[in-house]
Amino acid sequence: MKYVPVSGREMPRFAGIKTFFRLPHVNMDADYDVALVGVPFDGSLSYRPGARFAPSKIRELSSLGRAYHWERQLNFVEKLKVADIGDCSVVPIDVAKTYKAIEKHFAKLAGLEKRFISVGGDHSTTLPILRALKKKYKKPLALVHFDAHLDTYPAAWGCEYHHGSFLRHAIEEGLVQPKKTFQIGIRGPLASAEDLEFVNKKGLQPFTVENIRSANIKTVSAKINKLIGDDLCYLTYDIDCLDPAYAPGTGTPVVGGLTTYETQQILRGLKLPGLVGADVVEVSPQYDHADITSLAAVDAMFEILNIYAGK
Amino acid sequence: MKYVPVSGREMPRFAGIKTFFRLPHVNMDADYDVALVGVPFDGSLSYRPGARFAPSKIRELSSLGRAYHWERQLNFVEKLKVADIGDCSVVPIDVAKTYKAIEKHFAKLAGLEKRFISVGGDHSTTLPILRALKKKYKKPLALVHFDAHLDTYPAAWGCEYHHGSFLRHAIEEGLVQPKKTFQIGIRGPLASAEDLEFVNKKGLQPFTVENIRSANIKTVSAKINKLIGDDLCYLTYDIDCLDPAYAPGTGTPVVGGLTTYETQQILRGLKLPGLVGADVVEVSPQYDHADITSLAAVDAMFEILNIYAGK
Amino acid sequence: MKYVPVSGREMPRFAGIKTFFRLPHVNMDADYDVALVGVPFDGSLSYRPGARFAPSKIRELSSLGRAYHWERQLNFVEKLKVADIGDCSVVPIDVAKTYKAIEKHFAKLAGLEKRFISVGGDHSTTLPILRALKKKYKKPLALVHFDAHLDTYPAAWGCEYHHGSFLRHAIEEGLVQPKKTFQIGIRGPLASAEDLEFVNKKGLQPFTVENIRSANIKTVSAKINKLIGDDLCYLTYDIDCLDPAYAPGTGTPVVGGLTTYETQQILRGLKLPGLVGADVVEVSPQYDHADITSLAAVDAMFEILNIYAGK
Amino acid sequence: MKYVPVSGREMPRFAGIKTFFRLPHVNMDADYDVALVGVPFDGSLSYRPGARFAPSKIRELSSLGRAYHWERQLNFVEKLKVADIGDCSVVPIDVAKTYKAIEKHFAKLAGLEKRFISVGGDHSTTLPILRALKKKYKKPLALVHFDAHLDTYPAAWGCEYHHGSFLRHAIEEGLVQPKKTFQIGIRGPLASAEDLEFVNKKGLQPFTVENIRSANIKTVSAKINKLIGDDLCYLTYDIDCLDPAYAPGTGTPVVGGLTTYETQQILRGLKLPGLVGADVVEVSPQYDHADITSLAAVDAMFEILNIYAGK
Amino acid sequence: MKYVPVSGREMPRFAGIKTFFRLPHVNMDADYDVALVGVPFDGSLSYRPGARFAPSKIRELSSLGRAYHWERQLNFVEKLKVADIGDCSVVPIDVAKTYKAIEKHFAKLAGLEKRFISVGGDHSTTLPILRALKKKYKKPLALVHFDAHLDTYPAAWGCEYHHGSFLRHAIEEGLVQPKKTFQIGIRGPLASAEDLEFVNKKGLQPFTVENIRSANIKTVSAKINKLIGDDLCYLTYDIDCLDPAYAPGTGTPVVGGLTTYETQQILRGLKLPGLVGADVVEVSPQYDHADITSLAAVDAMFEILNIYAGK
Amino acid sequence: MKYVPVSGREMPRFAGIKTFFRLPHVNMDADYDVALVGVPFDGSLSYRPGARFAPSKIRELSSLGRAYHWERQLNFVEKLKVADIGDCSVVPIDVAKTYKAIEKHFAKLAGLEKRFISVGGDHSTTLPILRALKKKYKKPLALVHFDAHLDTYPAAWGCEYHHGSFLRHAIEEGLVQPKKTFQIGIRGPLASAEDLEFVNKKGLQPFTVENIRSANIKTVSAKINKLIGDDLCYLTYDIDCLDPAYAPGTGTPVVGGLTTYETQQILRGLKLPGLVGADVVEVSPQYDHADITSLAAVDAMFEILNIYAGK
Repeated sequence: MKYVPVSGREMPRFAGIKTFFRLPHVNMDADYDVALVGVPFDGSLSYRPGARFAPSKIRELSSLGRAYHWERQLNFVEKLKVADIGDCSVVPIDVAKTYKAIEKHFAKLAGLEKRFISVGGDHSTTLPILRALKKKYKKPLALVHFDAHLDTYPAAWGCEYHHGSFLRHAIEEGLVQPKKTFQIGIRGPLASAEDLEFVNKKGLQPFTVENIRSANIKTVSAKINKLIGDDLCYLTYDIDCLDPAYAPGTGTPVVGGLTTYETQQILRGLKLPGLVGADVVEVSPQYDHADITSLAAVDAMFEILNIYAGK
Repeated sequence: MKYVPVSGREMPRFAGIKTFFRLPHVNMDADYDVALVGVPFDGSLSYRPGARFAPSKIRELSSLGRAYHWERQLNFVEKLKVADIGDCSVVPIDVAKTYKAIEKHFAKLAGLEKRFISVGGDHSTTLPILRALKKKYKKPLALVHFDAHLDTYPAAWGCEYHHGSFLRHAIEEGLVQPKKTFQIGIRGPLASAEDLEFVNKKGLQPFTVENIRSANIKTVSAKINKLIGDDLCYLTYDIDCLDPAYAPGTGTPVVGGLTTYETQQILRGLKLPGLVGADVVEVSPQYDHADITSLAAVDAMFEILNIYAGK
Repeated sequence: MKYVPVSGREMPRFAGIKTFFRLPHVNMDADYDVALVGVPFDGSLSYRPGARFAPSKIRELSSLGRAYHWERQLNFVEKLKVADIGDCSVVPIDVAKTYKAIEKHFAKLAGLEKRFISVGGDHSTTLPILRALKKKYKKPLALVHFDAHLDTYPAAWGCEYHHGSFLRHAIEEGLVQPKKTFQIGIRGPLASAEDLEFVNKKGLQPFTVENIRSANIKTVSAKINKLIGDDLCYLTYDIDCLDPAYAPGTGTPVVGGLTTYETQQILRGLKLPGLVGADVVEVSPQYDHADITSLAAVDAMFEILNIYAGK
Repeated sequence: MKYVPVSGREMPRFAGIKTFFRLPHVNMDADYDVALVGVPFDGSLSYRPGARFAPSKIRELSSLGRAYHWERQLNFVEKLKVADIGDCSVVPIDVAKTYKAIEKHFAKLAGLEKRFISVGGDHSTTLPILRALKKKYKKPLALVHFDAHLDTYPAAWGCEYHHGSFLRHAIEEGLVQPKKTFQIGIRGPLASAEDLEFVNKKGLQPFTVENIRSANIKTVSAKINKLIGDDLCYLTYDIDCLDPAYAPGTGTPVVGGLTTYETQQILRGLKLPGLVGADVVEVSPQYDHADITSLAAVDAMFEILNIYAGK
Repeated sequence: MKYVPVSGREMPRFAGIKTFFRLPHVNMDADYDVALVGVPFDGSLSYRPGARFAPSKIRELSSLGRAYHWERQLNFVEKLKVADIGDCSVVPIDVAKTYKAIEKHFAKLAGLEKRFISVGGDHSTTLPILRALKKKYKKPLALVHFDAHLDTYPAAWGCEYHHGSFLRHAIEEGLVQPKKTFQIGIRGPLASAEDLEFVNKKGLQPFTVENIRSANIKTVSAKINKLIGDDLCYLTYDIDCLDPAYAPGTGTPVVGGLTTYETQQILRGLKLPGLVGADVVEVSPQYDHADITSLAAVDAMFEILNIYAGK
Repeated sequence: MKYVPVSGREMPRFAGIKTFFRLPHVNMDADYDVALVGVPFDGSLSYRPGARFAPSKIRELSSLGRAYHWERQLNFVEKLKVADIGDCSVVPIDVAKTYKAIEKHFAKLAGLEKRFISVGGDHSTTLPILRALKKKYKKPLALVHFDAHLDTYPAAWGCEYHHGSFLRHAIEEGLVQPKKTFQIGIRGPLASAEDLEFVNKKGLQPFTVENIRSANIKTVSAKINKLIGDDLCYLTYDIDCLDPAYAPGTGTPVVGGLTTYETQQILRGLKLPGLVGADVVEVSPQYDHADITSLAAVDAMFEILNIYAGK
């Protein structure tokens, strides 16, 4: 099996059955290095639904993906065997069942010593993945968290588990190291001042948009690299870290956000030798136009693949 | 309190805070006759989400509603006090909690001797409403059911309760009379021949699109009127009974469906003196264009109000 | 000057500067027979604006127009010299000034003994055109009026002149013959029973959708032909006579409407040897999708051109 | 290998890598009976481009497909092994090279004694398929041709081969039997009276929309069945046979067209024991909304699969 | 009466009847401090219409609003009683009548000593508001004016009053102080050099985009604060100050504009202790996508509420 | 003939037949200085089609264009006679025939000593224009090339000539000077490292987005001005140099791109006294929203007209 994309100069990019980056579709236990896997669940959203269609749409747009990173001078397909292993089965109308299914799926994947990028789904899908990694690696991970929102919010409508509380649970369950949790792109407004209490108490350090733009953007990744060092870590990229002009297709957009260029700059600066998993979440194709949000998601996947390949 | 719409010749129809048909927004226990109530829950859908936004969008488009029915020569506001009582609170990410909330809301409403039109939400919201009515009226209701789908389907993904199984449960729980359950607009394809077993065993009588078009459309309502007579009954109007050309904004559209003119003809023929409740469900505004699906929903509400007023 | 469309088999239909039906753009006083003229005014609308963009959009879509009528076995360009004379200048924010400008423009056109199709704009634009024709022809015209609405409504917001009152004024001003005013596609609901008083008092005879579908559609035009005979007459085609499935791009859509096939059948049956002017109004391109409403407008123009050519 | 769709009650219909009808993706030489194959070429279009994206979009929407035909009481997966064999490679910017590639692909498929449904692409793709079938079967086929257009038009812009001339070439090359060529849904306007000369000279018999609606729709398929009998035949379904209200997503829409119900009625009446190939063409997803055109295409494929299965 | 928003953690943000920021809907003479009021008039626009729908759409999107300002460490609901007082009645087709209605409405509101944010409507609606404030406060106000356009343009089509001339009239009528009029986001091209004459003669000082980006953005608000000091002042935020990438949904977009982050930075720097009124205008929801323009409007309203609260 | 735009203060900008910048439509051999000419060909695209509609759509949006450049203090209509000469006829389905037609059209135009802006069409249309200019001027031109892509790519699907190879051919055919070819806005990813070989070998100097943002943007045009000096030169503006947030309506968008403000800054700095031709290409209106991409194209045309006028 050759883990190379179908060439766009042979088969046009709009043709063929869609897999992530036009890479082979294989079983989970094949001999690849990094799995690209869909998690089409949007049952924990608070506002606009639709992220269930993200894996399918991002597969389609990843046809425009290319493999050579100019700045890194790196071709990820020469360094890594990357494959599409299809979607994790979910239960669209039941959060608890879905969490179990996701945890099981990723526990199996981690058990096979695979690294991966999960393509959500809403941000609640990150929690069961982190649970699976905790079981595998036995210790809390460092976390690089791109987002407009803190995601440490309390229960809503009597429900503990929703797309705005995954990080609170991950910290409370000991899945991630709060002091090595870096939140990038965060911005207000918040519901109330209390929303910051958990963040402050646990020692999370949000990089707000204003923080990032007030300093040299290169310092963001430099600081993260230094503090994470060789720790095992996870990267979660919520597309709403981007401004709605760049990522309209998402469930709870917040104005005043980052540009794709800015998150490229940060991702390109990250080293993360201990990266064991990653995800891209909260793309809602129904609210997108001209597929620009999906293209931004594909680009984030490309940069993450380069972090894997650059190690 | 006067239960009359804000006049479009005084305040333009695009102006003002949106209530159903520009009618007063009152508390549930006010002195109106018929409540218009939103149930913005789409957590039981199997394909396209978005019906959670239906009550809000249908309120907006009902600004174009008018009160005088030419064919019936009837002005419903002269016959009935109709009001908007706001939305039932739901839990967007938990089916069981939502069912309880809906049942409680409509039990209270029925307890106040009010009739109503519920504006869904997905079709799963009909089940807890029927449960509430069973508690109130102590016997199974006749049912007029507009739909493309039988909604007697088995569990999906291990879940008994979803938007395609409300009728099976309603029958199994004794909430409706299967032999007085009339399904209008039904059409294939089906997943398999087994999908018809429940229908046949229970004695439901679907009027398929072909049935309707092969005969004089007036006979449909005549037959239903005759068989239901004075029985207490419920009317549920799933917008996907309509063809996707007429109702694109829905979660699981099926081609080969009815026109709005056809469902008008049937609704205009219905008498239903025992009508105690009704709903309009499965409008997904994100998939609509030019709001034509919401306009079709407003028109169905108008016809149902005329059934109430015509008694 | 040859009044023939640019051939789509020479210059592709998407190419070139857009004129109606790819016909020559000439000055009003050139030697053509029938003028196609835009009236891009939507300042009298009550709900969705946008008809100001209709002339431009319909010019674009008329690139798909063809000249040979299969059923009539008639090529209008062989019978008539048809030309695009550009748009009437309007004042987008002042109804009274616009009425004067339109009346003056069409008085001049009628003075040149030209027939025409005006492409609106909202339906209020028909009134000043009828005023211009009254001045020219000195007597009230018969009227063929395709519409969902009666357009005999009273003043709104203290304004006598708006897109829903053109016909009331035309009758009150003696511009048209009420008993030879035929309204096609009319349907409810209405604001109140009073809305019918003017219609009944003046002896207008609406053909509602139900009227049309209950009988053989051929009888509609037969009846109109018989009653109008050789009278001078005007034809106004409000696109909302069509169902929103066929014409979503309009300002005040009403469900339960006609199909394009049905209005084709009626238009094909019309003789109208005294036809002196016509218009197509109420297309709102912003609410259209895939330009299907504009295509319906182009087709109506084609049928009207054939009425002119068939005389 | 089991040729059954992935169940929507196990894996949600929005999940997973998209194949036609969620059927297995196999190599061309696997042991299936009927191939579903994409031909994503839109390089011969005269107006709106985009049909290159049709195979991908129709794969996605066919997730909503089901297998049991209520009227036929037939489950196609129990009768036939149907598979997705991926897309034929095309050259998006070169008509001649693409024709060769298509002819070669289908010659190979026919050589394997497979029947198929090709999912276009524009209508020019039908010609090389017919050439391949001529080589295989050595005689001209009968043809059932759903379309708004005659497709017997002359060269355009100096090019013989375009999406409006496939049938003229097919007849001139002896690939189909002109007197057994049945054109369904045809309507005007035409560019000129000359457009009918070829049709009349060759003895094609168009069923115009008016022809179909003036008679009992059942007679259409009855007549075709009788005249084709056991002849080898081909079925080509151009989505623009449908009215733009039902199929807005196409390149050259024509108002006054058929409904999906009407083409279902005709397809359900067809027997065609000699059917050796079929296609569904001219879907342009960019001009679609709510994917209703793709849903219509999926339904046409379903009916064609039932013709294959019903033999 | 408690002037707090309905909590999104109790009632989902998509549920319920829509008021601005989910605040109470009260009568004008209730005991709140700051009124949020719609002015749905777009009858003075020169290009794309649709701002009449802005109040309704912005109410809907303000459901996503939150109350706590992270940078200011301020929760506006703890400092101010803010309420939705519904829409000002307008005459959609008559500029003069509408101006009178608006002036009367805001004169009454100012007479009650209320501050407010008016949600337009087109920019012509600002003039009658300023007239009302002049009557109340007896002297010209300082003005902070976000816009792409100078809005000091001459009459158009013979009409003095349109959406591009409000500021010229406000200055000529002595409603605002020209030398304390600050225009932010202005950019070319202009119709001609004469367009700058009024600006230069009156001593307005536009901050063009290039001015803003050439300097430290913090200096913009510092300069304005210093020059306005404690003067009574008004803030008008035309959404087209933003680049079309950030605010596509507007009537006359101009490329090369500000980002939402930049106007946040300026608004956050403003003190304006004498702020007596404000508006957000020129949002055209029909041209928006994913509601990003409405979200930008909601955010501007939030920042303005914080200016009120911060005093 | 006066070469001035129709005034928007006399005829509203949405009215009238659409020409570029509302300038006169004249024959190629009239007495203007600069031609605006459409080249509606998109037959060489590799992904999203639709640029064939760009000339028509950009004509429409150029109605919003104005003539006075604030920063340059220059009114181009006072310096130059600019006219719309309509579209070059193309063969939508044949690359070779189209190249010949384009070359012939521009050879004739150059022969008349006209300068021009060609409005594409896809980027392949630039090659035959450069061929025509080579014939006229007998030497290779300097080139200013805005683009996300290098456009020096190899053959695709066996075709040498496509929209990603125009520059390779222009260099290989000696039409442009590689060392005076400046590429602005270029960014990765690339298919492979080999994609840079041609660029490096020929000595092209791409200004990547990172290059541009790492330095003072004014230095970009300063450097180009210095190196080109008085050389004859050509400017090609591929709209995808912009970020998809600013130009979603294009065929192969790449995230991380320039803003309209940045390309304005560069264009405003350019002198180019030897500019003999220019184009704006790759606008795909079907993928645009709110026409923001077309507005960006109009603005680029305006800046290029100012370069011509500023000489």
